[in-house]
Amino acid sequence: MSKPLQGLSRPYILLTNDDGIFAPGLFALYESLRQIAEVTVVAPDSEKSAVGHAITITDPLRVMPFEKFGKFFGHAVHGTPADCVKIAYFALLERKPDLVVSGINYGSNTGINVIYSGTVSAATEGTILGIPSFAISLTTFKDADFSYAAKFAAQLVPHVLKNGLPKGTFLNVNVPNVPEAEIRGVAVTRMGMIAYDDKFDKRIDPRNRVYYWLTGSKFECDEGEEVDDGAIQKNMVSISPIHYDLTNHRVLEELKKWEIKK
Amino acid sequence: MSKPLQGLSRPYILLTNDDGIFAPGLFALYESLRQIAEVTVVAPDSEKSAVGHAITITDPLRVMPFEKFGKFFGHAVHGTPADCVKIAYFALLERKPDLVVSGINYGSNTGINVIYSGTVSAATEGTILGIPSFAISLTTFKDADFSYAAKFAAQLVPHVLKNGLPKGTFLNVNVPNVPEAEIRGVAVTRMGMIAYDDKFDKRIDPRNRVYYWLTGSKFECDEGEEVDDGAIQKNMVSISPIHYDLTNHRVLEELKKWEIKK
Repeated sequence: MSKPLQGLSRPYILLTNDDGIFAPGLFALYESLRQIAEVTVVAPDSEKSAVGHAITITDPLRVMPFEKFGKFFGHAVHGTPADCVKIAYFALLERKPDLVVSGINYGSNTGINVIYSGTVSAATEGTILGIPSFAISLTTFKDADFSYAAKFAAQLVPHVLKNGLPKGTFLNVNVPNVPEAEIRGVAVTRMGMIAYDDKFDKRIDPRNRVYYWLTGSKFECDEGEEVDDGAIQKNMVSISPIHYDLTNHRVLEELKKWEIKK
Repeated sequence: MSKPLQGLSRPYILLTNDDGIFAPGLFALYESLRQIAEVTVVAPDSEKSAVGHAITITDPLRVMPFEKFGKFFGHAVHGTPADCVKIAYFALLERKPDLVVSGINYGSNTGINVIYSGTVSAATEGTILGIPSFAISLTTFKDADFSYAAKFAAQLVPHVLKNGLPKGTFLNVNVPNVPEAEIRGVAVTRMGMIAYDDKFDKRIDPRNRVYYWLTGSKFECDEGEEVDDGAIQKNMVSISPIHYDLTNHRVLEELKKWEIKK
């Protein structure tokens, strides 16, 4: 188990996720992080997967106390992961946290999935607020064992607090769902850029109306362990530095040559 | 009014937005684009602002025909802008469009707002599918006059089709809400990186329960007309090249020096 930071008081961590405050991945992370830090949980009151970087602007936000084992566990927000971080910072927490941690997500957040991910959006929001942040996901949809991922998160905290993160940048961590002994190491990776092969099932409902359902999607992996999915396939923990500066700076000059007139 | 592309058949455009299929900004854009192109409208059946890059995975998607002036206008999707582009491409359209256009959004999509924007997410989704795409927004929340923005969109189409766009990159266009005569030109810009100054109103509902509402937020502008908001303040049309490769490539090597162990 990780030790508290030497020479530092216990850090203060805001913990959230997108699977909701009930999720076992959140609880495993909470149990691990509170051994090295003060932790406040502010998480959605229901599952908010694939919400992207949504925020709630057309409705009021409600926050309810959520209990576990007979005592207060955290704030349950009727909103998205980005809402949780915003409202924690601006309305619920008494002081600015040292770190925002989001997870442990049930399912990988790698490649193009990163842009749909509520888990990642919480880390983005923390970063926008100037707080070092990371998102952590377990790369499985069955037989999840969160124990090593939770332990790794606690090991990562002192690295982030000691080194700091570049302005506007956070870490997106994906952990293979294998026993600790089979983890082959830690890879610093880039986000894979190969799109999924989506399909829609066209179905007929009991009242004879058509509906569509987005369905499972095989995809090809962007090759090599320098890419998030490639590292995972080699049983390595993947850590990608992600930023929210979406400008493609390389093409600014090229675009000026188009000479678009008003 | 823009002319059809010389030497090309009329392009085929998928048109969507996040304000919903009822929105006047969508209709103004439709009326302008159909003078130079075949246009199919696939848009959310209700307002989907600030949904970020959300997709619907836990519910079925329904699509209804939507009429205007007594005839078919477009497909109304009970989902997000990203859903609209996905389902159009995979289930509704008979052929791959030459272009995805999203807008005209009621309100600017500049600076940090870009990551919350449903309008922008539709262009992202088009780009993921390998279709040249742009998002267009009118930078006002009152007294909107979409006419110049609609005209400009039609002028931009041949530029995009002739030059193409770099892989994974689309254009985010913002148009000042002033008469055409006051538009000072077109600026190629980067996305501003200064965060909003958010606040939450804490209120009491009629049943004496607390709720919160995300509220108006002054913000400082990232300076100069090389930045989206700076260009807008100078009454210039802002065009930013946006990509969805979120890796901060500059810090990959630095992060490796952390020597994070498993």
